[in-house]
Amino acid sequence: MSRIAYVDGRYVPSRSAAVHIEDRGYQLADGVYEVCAVVNGVILDEAPHLDRLDRSLRELEITAPMGRAALSIVMRRVITRNRIRNGIIYLQITRGVARRDHPFPAFARPVLVMTSKSVDFSRIIERALNGVPVITVPDLRWARRDIKSISLLPNVLAKQAAVEKGAGEAWQVDETGHVTEGSATNAWIVPREGLLVTRPLNNDILAGVTRKGMMEVARELGYRIEERSFTVAEAKKAREAFFTSTTNFAMPVVSIDGDPVGTGKAGPIVRAILSAYWRKVIKETGLSTAEIPALKKL
Amino acid sequence: MSRIAYVDGRYVPSRSAAVHIEDRGYQLADGVYEVCAVVNGVILDEAPHLDRLDRSLRELEITAPMGRAALSIVMRRVITRNRIRNGIIYLQITRGVARRDHPFPAFARPVLVMTSKSVDFSRIIERALNGVPVITVPDLRWARRDIKSISLLPNVLAKQAAVEKGAGEAWQVDETGHVTEGSATNAWIVPREGLLVTRPLNNDILAGVTRKGMMEVARELGYRIEERSFTVAEAKKAREAFFTSTTNFAMPVVSIDGDPVGTGKAGPIVRAILSAYWRKVIKETGLSTAEIPALKKL
Repeated sequence: MSRIAYVDGRYVPSRSAAVHIEDRGYQLADGVYEVCAVVNGVILDEAPHLDRLDRSLRELEITAPMGRAALSIVMRRVITRNRIRNGIIYLQITRGVARRDHPFPAFARPVLVMTSKSVDFSRIIERALNGVPVITVPDLRWARRDIKSISLLPNVLAKQAAVEKGAGEAWQVDETGHVTEGSATNAWIVPREGLLVTRPLNNDILAGVTRKGMMEVARELGYRIEERSFTVAEAKKAREAFFTSTTNFAMPVVSIDGDPVGTGKAGPIVRAILSAYWRKVIKETGLSTAEIPALKKL
Repeated sequence: MSRIAYVDGRYVPSRSAAVHIEDRGYQLADGVYEVCAVVNGVILDEAPHLDRLDRSLRELEITAPMGRAALSIVMRRVITRNRIRNGIIYLQITRGVARRDHPFPAFARPVLVMTSKSVDFSRIIERALNGVPVITVPDLRWARRDIKSISLLPNVLAKQAAVEKGAGEAWQVDETGHVTEGSATNAWIVPREGLLVTRPLNNDILAGVTRKGMMEVARELGYRIEERSFTVAEAKKAREAFFTSTTNFAMPVVSIDGDPVGTGKAGPIVRAILSAYWRKVIKETGLSTAEIPALKKL
């Protein structure tokens, strides 16, 4: 847990980190967020995360609370004050505090909240070495999943359904039987050697920053990537399946709704991509692998 | 604005009414709400509102923060402490405060927030005497609109679109061209003398308490009610159209996307229903019509 939180201009102890009950984020889910990984004190993919944040704000016509340089400084301060070496930083911007009413208020100042906490990435890599089961659920969400909004109740329900079935993620399925994405991750399959498939970007899914990062790494490794929708049936017949996100990196899927994918173990292709991804991160951040012991097993 | 708010067990001045930044309502829209009208100090339709609240909580597996009798007492105290004679009371219950993670937390205590404010019902009735334009927008919302959740961003965007076009409400339209409901209201048409049409209850719309109240009044006046979907085209050709909600009561629609409905003025049928509705409210609450001057014009 974050010891110090940044809340609307002030650095405060987390215990007393509070927002007004009429913050539109609290009453109307009128806000957006980002989560960035921090490795060896370095914010991974900061620019694409802040680009996406800008886009989310623009789509909802929420004014940015500060310029990017200032935001970047606050992010670094939050990380430093919480003494985060490896972990995540969470940013949330809402439209601000106003008398409750649906339309945008005439006068409201956006509210920025930021927290940071340590994450044991070694444990996440250990999990990736084993892979996780996923379940499928109907995609109940709204039509603008490209906006990274805090209107996350359907995602909460999807992930809860996964947890109740002992699965690591819930893959959401559209009316035509095609997988859109996980509750907080992008979905991938490896239908055959050398080919990766993931859903193309449009309003149906979020443009994952890690999705893009893994794509680059996979291409460097010589994999071809097809951006197209795939069905649950196709995913079950794939050699491998996996999902990507800021906090999962690339997570192998060992079964879908109880049916094993491929050998039913974490596949070699996703492992190769994850390994190459971390080699890049190590290079970029100067991380000593001793800090994340599981890296040696990758 | 509420002067005193009830926040998680305490009555606090509104200025300092705050919730923790890790309240799941703030980060994940993981909560529900209700709004009740207060007339002459009496809470209208308290039982059906609290029944619906219970249902919303049950659907999301959020524990009620207190029993109904206790909730009812808090509601009365919030009204009294804010000296509300005519206005609304707003209740919000979230799943509680927990480290940010999508699944339901193992330990979290639901957080109840309540506010109350005065509303000039005379102004709303004046508006009803003139009627308002509506626009139509695609219904972008999630598939569980029967749950009165705070995941309201799509509703915010719909209402904002209405405001930008000088309209009083946005009617949301499904993929088949049928009206679902407004951003915070139920939609009705009068296709011909003696007949009212409104969409049937299922996951597509919220079961409006005022929708039910107006239905009862309309039946008492001898109108037949057909619960079925209607298209935008049908609505434009209707004799009358209107929408209902706790704070709008019954609001005549004078045009849809700029095309006049019926005579292009507030229709006599909705006016008769609204008038009968207020007669019931006056009887139930002992309201003196002098307090809401526009009632005399109804």
